[in-house]
Amino acid sequence: MSYGTVTLVGGGPGDWDLLTIRGLRALQASDVILTDHLGPASQLPEFLDLDGKELIDVSKLPYGRQVAQERINELIVTHALAGRRVVRLKGGDPFVFGRGFEEVQACAAAGVACEVVPGVTSAISVPAAAGIPVTQRGLTHAFTVVSGHLAPSHPASLVDWPALARIGGTIVVIMGVRHVRAITAALIDASLAPTTPAAVIQEGETASQRAFYCDLGNLADVTEANNVASPAVYVIGEVAALARP
Amino acid sequence: MSYGTVTLVGGGPGDWDLLTIRGLRALQASDVILTDHLGPASQLPEFLDLDGKELIDVSKLPYGRQVAQERINELIVTHALAGRRVVRLKGGDPFVFGRGFEEVQACAAAGVACEVVPGVTSAISVPAAAGIPVTQRGLTHAFTVVSGHLAPSHPASLVDWPALARIGGTIVVIMGVRHVRAITAALIDASLAPTTPAAVIQEGETASQRAFYCDLGNLADVTEANNVASPAVYVIGEVAALARP
Repeated sequence: MSYGTVTLVGGGPGDWDLLTIRGLRALQASDVILTDHLGPASQLPEFLDLDGKELIDVSKLPYGRQVAQERINELIVTHALAGRRVVRLKGGDPFVFGRGFEEVQACAAAGVACEVVPGVTSAISVPAAAGIPVTQRGLTHAFTVVSGHLAPSHPASLVDWPALARIGGTIVVIMGVRHVRAITAALIDASLAPTTPAAVIQEGETASQRAFYCDLGNLADVTEANNVASPAVYVIGEVAALARP
Repeated sequence: MSYGTVTLVGGGPGDWDLLTIRGLRALQASDVILTDHLGPASQLPEFLDLDGKELIDVSKLPYGRQVAQERINELIVTHALAGRRVVRLKGGDPFVFGRGFEEVQACAAAGVACEVVPGVTSAISVPAAAGIPVTQRGLTHAFTVVSGHLAPSHPASLVDWPALARIGGTIVVIMGVRHVRAITAALIDASLAPTTPAAVIQEGETASQRAFYCDLGNLADVTEANNVASPAVYVIGEVAALARP
């Protein structure tokens, strides 16, 4: 029996030239590419000869979110077991809230070799694209990247938001548009000053990037007033002021 | 007067093929490259035609650390003002504890155009290279990257370590070898369980990578017993157990 291989490739935040060279080579050597709507997927024809390659857009799977991941795992494994070189192209880095490790585990369970090619994470590069460094000497010795997909009060939330408010570092929230009001309220309730500099960047590192600079106290208002939509990255902390226009 | 340009390039954690395509192109178009000892600097001759390019190893500047940064800023600006295309090649991502933003500010102060090309940060990719995802569904909704270059009790420390212990997410410590015993003690004093899974990875994503899997309670002992030296990345949190051998 001849098994194929699986490579999870971090596609970076948007433009395809933020792919790594290792990631590009994996794509070039692939037979099947599973993409979603993030990262450089829409630009594939611009930088890759797709002749002889099968493209599968797994963001279009007709299932609810949770079932879809199981179906993605199954597709990855099935194509690899058929002897094909499979690339799973993901936005950002595969292990930053991308459910990449579940795909690694699915490969391991099926006895399929799986390599992970790290990528440029949106959590750092999107703030940078808006002129904000997540760290700066003398200002912060830490930064926390946190998923905002659950409200702070949600029973399944694994984040102690009051503790997060007190760390003293930069806070980067991704997937936070829906719950931005609850998130900013939780941080302020935990005594993070409403005057703390903040920013929100929509579709960072793409041609459609929009960035708004404000403070923690009006971050939710600024989000609503400007109809900020996903994907968006929030930055909360003194570093956000470094880029203020 | 014709000004040159400056590009800060995130070189990734080690092997040159984890450079981005945008970063490689900036290197190819450069006249002067300022490198240090991190990232792919030592591999430059393997992937770049250096003919006509000036290489400056700024890690060899004969100054103390702080003065050296000012001298680096001065070199960057001087070469750009002379009309040359300058690349400052940095390990990892330019804005993750790399003093990259100080270089951006130096360029701005001199009126020199400066572009930042983000890179694959060691803080995420080195754990990944040791089989550890910084996030995993159901285990953690956050991760914090923290500099360990100051002991938690140092008066200049900007990190509230007890708060960090309570967030409930993955903790990634870089530059922490010297203070690992004080750091782990601070986290345990703040009620993070000594049985919390942990790992330390030395020279991750290079041919010399060594990884040790343990728990928070013996992380300092494991570091000493194995003579772990910088550069090393510590991972503390439930995700560290996912890769346990």
